[in-house]
Amino acid sequence: MPDKIRAFILIIGNEVLSGRTRDANLTFLANALNEIGIQVGEARVIPDDEKIIIDTVNYARTAFDYVFTTGGIGPTHDDITAACIAKAFKRPLIRNEKAVAMLQTHYRPEDLNEARLRMANTPSDAILIENPISKAPGFQIDNVFVLAGVPRIAQAMFENLKPRLKGAVPVISKTISTDLGEGLIAGPLGDIQNKFPNIEIGSYPYFREGKTGVSLVVRALNEEDIDLCLERIKVMIESLGGKLIFSV
Amino acid sequence: MPDKIRAFILIIGNEVLSGRTRDANLTFLANALNEIGIQVGEARVIPDDEKIIIDTVNYARTAFDYVFTTGGIGPTHDDITAACIAKAFKRPLIRNEKAVAMLQTHYRPEDLNEARLRMANTPSDAILIENPISKAPGFQIDNVFVLAGVPRIAQAMFENLKPRLKGAVPVISKTISTDLGEGLIAGPLGDIQNKFPNIEIGSYPYFREGKTGVSLVVRALNEEDIDLCLERIKVMIESLGGKLIFSV
Repeated sequence: MPDKIRAFILIIGNEVLSGRTRDANLTFLANALNEIGIQVGEARVIPDDEKIIIDTVNYARTAFDYVFTTGGIGPTHDDITAACIAKAFKRPLIRNEKAVAMLQTHYRPEDLNEARLRMANTPSDAILIENPISKAPGFQIDNVFVLAGVPRIAQAMFENLKPRLKGAVPVISKTISTDLGEGLIAGPLGDIQNKFPNIEIGSYPYFREGKTGVSLVVRALNEEDIDLCLERIKVMIESLGGKLIFSV
Repeated sequence: MPDKIRAFILIIGNEVLSGRTRDANLTFLANALNEIGIQVGEARVIPDDEKIIIDTVNYARTAFDYVFTTGGIGPTHDDITAACIAKAFKRPLIRNEKAVAMLQTHYRPEDLNEARLRMANTPSDAILIENPISKAPGFQIDNVFVLAGVPRIAQAMFENLKPRLKGAVPVISKTISTDLGEGLIAGPLGDIQNKFPNIEIGSYPYFREGKTGVSLVVRALNEEDIDLCLERIKVMIESLGGKLIFSV
């Protein structure tokens, strides 16, 4: 099993860059991929711009094990993702007959107009990703998975493509929080991090219900290593007079 | 006044890529920048990794008018943004005396330990960005603005740096919604888009309270153009028997 499998998330859409829509797909995909041992190495939000989409997909599909795009596969003029992916792979954009059949299960013949049929366009030899909600499918070419932008459709599509992914050992993560200030523990925490080079210790100050403190997230492949590290952190917090707060 | 001023948003933090934290800074910054005529052209989420931070900052600061980074300026071992920005600009990282003075207004002398003093490290000749909440400042070098990752601190810092930004004419945006399906209007909407090349028409299907429909967002620099375009869209919706739903 490979040591680390890395994914790249590409959020395509002017509405995210204009601030109109707050993206929800990155958080969902990151968590879902983590569960099966795939780590998100980078994410980008880019506009509905042909050149930028093509260049970014071509960079990401060689630099990462998997690429997931969201957005731009609907029926309107601003939905250009499928055509751009075809160009990135230098394949023709075809009317995918299997995709047409899927749309026919959702639309009456008189409603299946040319705009809706555009949602059946894919690069040639793409593998479809079923969409149980509105039927217009996503698709996969090589290591690139093209999903809808609407979060509940993207999530349903991900469930359908998940069996195609090869994960590594999932990263395990445990969190411990304390009421101590982040700056108070920063020094000894850095010492602990230095003693555990294979563990990633993240430090996140919080302000919740009028209380301040810091959550320490310990991430590694091996649970025993994590527990050993957490034990050191607990001793450190107690030696500084802090309260231990356990959380998920 | 320049035609278009473009910003790049760089979200730095493993916690966003792991799915632990859902980013809120992109949406805030995009909206706040839009209001003063600055458009976000691209955003990236990258890990706390020295090489990636340096390379991305150096790409973005030449390709865009402004760069805003969030995250990685706290007191712990994983807070490496300030050191990376110094390396990107090939400047020494110094203990900024003005920043130390700010921290002294917040911490008792006995609490201002070395870890907290790290938050006063900036590249040489950086211009500080005040933080009214926890005092540890952000900073600016040239066209790069370095902000905290905690949203309410990032927002307060943005208010303080805003007077330093030169905007263009703000983009105006108006939205009209209808209960018609996106695929039904896609064809005539594309025709309208072709007639208004200086206007950006975005089409966003929605599912709200059991009802489906589509919101059309019309964005341009000139309100008269927008109203002319909206009028065409209204006529098109009505000719298809759709309901007009006005929203903000």
